[in-house]
Amino acid sequence: MSSSYGKIFKISTFGESHGVAVGVIIDGCPAGIDFDTDFIQSELDRRKPGQSRITTQRREADEFQVLSGIFEGKTQGTPIAMVVHNADQRSKDYAHIAQQFRPSHADYTYQAKYGTRDYRGGGRSSARETIARVAAGAVAKMILKKIGVNIQAYVSQVGTLKLTTPYQEMNLALAEENAVRCPDPTMAQTMFNYIDETRKKGDSIGGIISCVITGTPIGLGEPVFDKLHAELGKAMLSINAVKGFEYGSGFEGVEMLGSEHNDEFYIEESGRVRTKTNLSGGIQGGIANGEDIYFRVAFKPVATIMIDQDSVDSEGNAVTVSGKGRHDPCVVPRAVPIVEAMAALVLVDMYFRNHAYGK
Amino acid sequence: MSSSYGKIFKISTFGESHGVAVGVIIDGCPAGIDFDTDFIQSELDRRKPGQSRITTQRREADEFQVLSGIFEGKTQGTPIAMVVHNADQRSKDYAHIAQQFRPSHADYTYQAKYGTRDYRGGGRSSARETIARVAAGAVAKMILKKIGVNIQAYVSQVGTLKLTTPYQEMNLALAEENAVRCPDPTMAQTMFNYIDETRKKGDSIGGIISCVITGTPIGLGEPVFDKLHAELGKAMLSINAVKGFEYGSGFEGVEMLGSEHNDEFYIEESGRVRTKTNLSGGIQGGIANGEDIYFRVAFKPVATIMIDQDSVDSEGNAVTVSGKGRHDPCVVPRAVPIVEAMAALVLVDMYFRNHAYGK
Amino acid sequence: MSSSYGKIFKISTFGESHGVAVGVIIDGCPAGIDFDTDFIQSELDRRKPGQSRITTQRREADEFQVLSGIFEGKTQGTPIAMVVHNADQRSKDYAHIAQQFRPSHADYTYQAKYGTRDYRGGGRSSARETIARVAAGAVAKMILKKIGVNIQAYVSQVGTLKLTTPYQEMNLALAEENAVRCPDPTMAQTMFNYIDETRKKGDSIGGIISCVITGTPIGLGEPVFDKLHAELGKAMLSINAVKGFEYGSGFEGVEMLGSEHNDEFYIEESGRVRTKTNLSGGIQGGIANGEDIYFRVAFKPVATIMIDQDSVDSEGNAVTVSGKGRHDPCVVPRAVPIVEAMAALVLVDMYFRNHAYGK
Amino acid sequence: MSSSYGKIFKISTFGESHGVAVGVIIDGCPAGIDFDTDFIQSELDRRKPGQSRITTQRREADEFQVLSGIFEGKTQGTPIAMVVHNADQRSKDYAHIAQQFRPSHADYTYQAKYGTRDYRGGGRSSARETIARVAAGAVAKMILKKIGVNIQAYVSQVGTLKLTTPYQEMNLALAEENAVRCPDPTMAQTMFNYIDETRKKGDSIGGIISCVITGTPIGLGEPVFDKLHAELGKAMLSINAVKGFEYGSGFEGVEMLGSEHNDEFYIEESGRVRTKTNLSGGIQGGIANGEDIYFRVAFKPVATIMIDQDSVDSEGNAVTVSGKGRHDPCVVPRAVPIVEAMAALVLVDMYFRNHAYGK
Repeated sequence: MSSSYGKIFKISTFGESHGVAVGVIIDGCPAGIDFDTDFIQSELDRRKPGQSRITTQRREADEFQVLSGIFEGKTQGTPIAMVVHNADQRSKDYAHIAQQFRPSHADYTYQAKYGTRDYRGGGRSSARETIARVAAGAVAKMILKKIGVNIQAYVSQVGTLKLTTPYQEMNLALAEENAVRCPDPTMAQTMFNYIDETRKKGDSIGGIISCVITGTPIGLGEPVFDKLHAELGKAMLSINAVKGFEYGSGFEGVEMLGSEHNDEFYIEESGRVRTKTNLSGGIQGGIANGEDIYFRVAFKPVATIMIDQDSVDSEGNAVTVSGKGRHDPCVVPRAVPIVEAMAALVLVDMYFRNHAYGK
Repeated sequence: MSSSYGKIFKISTFGESHGVAVGVIIDGCPAGIDFDTDFIQSELDRRKPGQSRITTQRREADEFQVLSGIFEGKTQGTPIAMVVHNADQRSKDYAHIAQQFRPSHADYTYQAKYGTRDYRGGGRSSARETIARVAAGAVAKMILKKIGVNIQAYVSQVGTLKLTTPYQEMNLALAEENAVRCPDPTMAQTMFNYIDETRKKGDSIGGIISCVITGTPIGLGEPVFDKLHAELGKAMLSINAVKGFEYGSGFEGVEMLGSEHNDEFYIEESGRVRTKTNLSGGIQGGIANGEDIYFRVAFKPVATIMIDQDSVDSEGNAVTVSGKGRHDPCVVPRAVPIVEAMAALVLVDMYFRNHAYGK
Repeated sequence: MSSSYGKIFKISTFGESHGVAVGVIIDGCPAGIDFDTDFIQSELDRRKPGQSRITTQRREADEFQVLSGIFEGKTQGTPIAMVVHNADQRSKDYAHIAQQFRPSHADYTYQAKYGTRDYRGGGRSSARETIARVAAGAVAKMILKKIGVNIQAYVSQVGTLKLTTPYQEMNLALAEENAVRCPDPTMAQTMFNYIDETRKKGDSIGGIISCVITGTPIGLGEPVFDKLHAELGKAMLSINAVKGFEYGSGFEGVEMLGSEHNDEFYIEESGRVRTKTNLSGGIQGGIANGEDIYFRVAFKPVATIMIDQDSVDSEGNAVTVSGKGRHDPCVVPRAVPIVEAMAALVLVDMYFRNHAYGK
Repeated sequence: MSSSYGKIFKISTFGESHGVAVGVIIDGCPAGIDFDTDFIQSELDRRKPGQSRITTQRREADEFQVLSGIFEGKTQGTPIAMVVHNADQRSKDYAHIAQQFRPSHADYTYQAKYGTRDYRGGGRSSARETIARVAAGAVAKMILKKIGVNIQAYVSQVGTLKLTTPYQEMNLALAEENAVRCPDPTMAQTMFNYIDETRKKGDSIGGIISCVITGTPIGLGEPVFDKLHAELGKAMLSINAVKGFEYGSGFEGVEMLGSEHNDEFYIEESGRVRTKTNLSGGIQGGIANGEDIYFRVAFKPVATIMIDQDSVDSEGNAVTVSGKGRHDPCVVPRAVPIVEAMAALVLVDMYFRNHAYGK
């Protein structure tokens, strides 16, 4: 019961890495939305493997098909089912590790929890599961666009290579113009080279994705347990390989005094209430105050490496896990659309939750 | 609908800072648990104000009363209602700020969202709401204790004062022996002095709470959206003033290579599968692997300070917010039991979710 | 986790018959509603014991107290907690049956399920639990009133005494003018006498409550699993002693031909789409079509009787259960406000669910 | 958000009558269940059209495909996705009614609620949606079979033709040997002839399905809002064309005295607690007591008839709806597996809810 997310705009995902298909049902999408299939496909293309030599070479077109919920180009208020059939399954790549527990993968915990597992490519624990998130997130983005919400994520760190320029001083759209998805072209090239070197060594490296959300309606978000940033945090932490989440001042904020950290209010000429600074990250008491929402997501290095590692198998024997098959040396370039998709799913659900009372 | 948490062990909280009472209903607690009222009160005492001169001087005994669900000293499987009546309400302290939006508080966002707000002490957005979490968390701890799960949080940073000793090398129980709740007595004293100086200046300072969970059953936690660390992250981020969450290697992990970060498996003499290192933080694929779970929670400086600040009021006038009343110069000492309570609520719910299938 | 109802306007109830208190939290009530405490109390008074000699003589004022969520006479969008303290607990009345399983009560099933039970007056299985429903339902009614929805229930059958007049031909408001809550004064008197005779014999008798809802917005209700009548059915069947639910043509409709049963559409002068007949009971495909919603709820005779019965105890001994204490000879007069409350809770939740998408 | 059912064994369904496919995701099925595809197909075959001349002649093989969740013949604890592609779509059959509101269908209410609708065969409101229920219900039955629960439904009334024999005195398995699914062969033939005559007149007729569940574990079911019979009632009322639900003594029970209706307890030689009678219908206080659960479900006559009817169209014009296409003259024969499937979904979810606490 954990492959579902959302209270009103509710998604339920399915599919294993080397099964027949992966997909998603959206239950709770309003009627009358123009359904832009090209946009959905373009979002899936941002996530798909094989985009450059620093991403896995698994060959998948990742073309999606709609099974229900759309009629004459519009949503019907009924469940929208979308599937992507798996093409390049090559499950023989995995036969040699059927009984092995790959270090820092979910092999051991799935086996322990379920007493069985689909060992082909990680089965359900594969990052291929995120296709469903991106497809559903694209539908969420369509709705958010209509109310002026824009979500833009980008790579801000790879290993020790940090992009320190504040987001306000960059053209974030440039992130989509390079394989790393870093909006600073020079840094992007440096990161690319570093990831490529890491790949050649058969190793992997971590990174950070930053995300900026503009145009969030004031009042969106819920108090107490479902605070807007708490839901964003959960959503991000639910993405494979994520180890941390911070928003606004984040971990650095702990070193500040209240007198430095507080965002004083003022009135704009338009009469709108604004804050002079935005260390709050656009959210106060769990509720959006209309300022930019921004947060950072830490990704560990991908567990799949092409280097021999010690491990054990399901019989309790010591084994050597040999790296074979295909892998992403650094997950963050392909994770940018996933971060955006999860942010969109959180926001659209909060939007409808807020709207239930007429806001 | 956002004052509820949990799927099986489900809590629903209520209460404003200066209303009649704050409290909680637990719907989904199993029958037959010995209900230890002294333990619950002791947990509330760890959270209550006035414990030392570095915490707010609001006078509250915070004695709780059970309204239902307990018979002859045992839980009945029926809803357990617990309330704490507010004693020292002094709402006159707040009259002068009734129309003002205090910087980095939730005044403005509540007003914008609801069109009204209980301005007395922050109303529902007050940290007094966490009484309900601590009471429910104490019940969760009773259950977890029976299955060998132990949760221990402590203060590991105040401002720039960092405790860098690994948790394995400290006696965490010492945290309860000083007002800061830092397990290193020397560092605790340094932190205490620093917080006290900050208090005298009428300012506030942030901090970090670290938490270690031992004895988690292997297989606990759910894949995909409700990963164990995603739920822990949401739970922590739902606590007032929290800006960040990381577990295992966290943000530092992004700088590591996969070959450094992966936790190789081995077999203990007992036959149990273990990992040589634990950068995973005890969770792989969202599911506990039996190693220690550890995480860190970043708290910003408390928004209430005794220093004048610029702001606006609900009429759109520029105003000066003057610090009056009582405040916590640093929230982390009192937040330790809250972090533990939220961790307990996550774990106990995951325990019953897992158990539904016979595990 | 089964003492909660609703997805957006969500209630969570607690309390045993002879515990400290019974009560409810409403999580999800919008802000800005004028909170009419007199109305809530008047609804509780319609439910309370001792209203006439045909209801139980347990003495309870059933005065409720608000613990949270109301400020300056208005709802705040925060959880509303309401409690009624138990006064006339007389648990000694129950000491003699502590180990006995009373026939057709929940004693045996609670004991079997939980391994323990609060035997005083049925504990959580007591109809006293419905106080929480009536209090929450009164808040729901306040909201529904503002959108023109009216809910009126009445007693239409007691034993074999049937009121066969169609609801359209009666003044349903008359139901509140007699102790039976039957809108036909003559029939009401006949029913009263019959119930009173049954009471004198120490026996009990069943009955039917009919309910009519007018003014439901067209489009309210959800398709597939949460059809409006399915939620109404669940809500009614969740009331103690209910054995059946039917709406519109109900069980009689099975004997009709489609050509007789179908409700043909026509256009009113106002331009509104109407149906010539209303065998559908105001709901088509699970969604309100704007016609009156009407349904009937079957209540079995109350299990508590003043006549000796064979049974067993928790040790497996054959015992005689002797009727002592107080009882309602017929539950339907006091259940009228409960039926209305549950209907209100269903409708208000469906209203907000619909409203989430802007309707 | 209303195409989902269940708290632990959770299903989410999708699909329109004349869309690409209908299907279901099960999120929360435990791992390690032998997945019997033949059994699932056989259940779908019991539901499919064209089984005899008294069912609709739409041609559909209704072959299902598994997209995820099964590996090496066993469930994996991951979401199980099953789809049935629509074959005989003939949407031209519906072009003539695109703008018309068919009497007692959901055309008008869907249009009013969503502002759009897929008019081809009723779109989402089509009974074709129940394919998903039957497929998921078949998986539920596999699990229930292992714990000894058996569910058997049958037709007990068609129009005024009533089968009055108590279920205990019939061989219910005989129901599957005739097209009507009535366990009394003589009555079955009478019913068949009557339905066939009704069909020839282009009309339709209602009916009742009875259902008996044996072997339910004592203690299964939840108190208060989610009482076992309340969930069964909701589940049945969510099936298209259902107008009423009663269990145990049902509506007839209202005419009984408590002294007649109460089920006295006794101890079997085995030591098991039993009841002498079973007017409770196997459920007391919402919780199974181990006796047979039995209930009855009322179906109205199918709204599609081959007879002209007055109606209006979406422009507000008076129109004549002419019967064309294909229809079921009586829905109950094909609804028997649907009733069983919904009962299975309720029971399996309640089973896991109960099991969460170790029962």
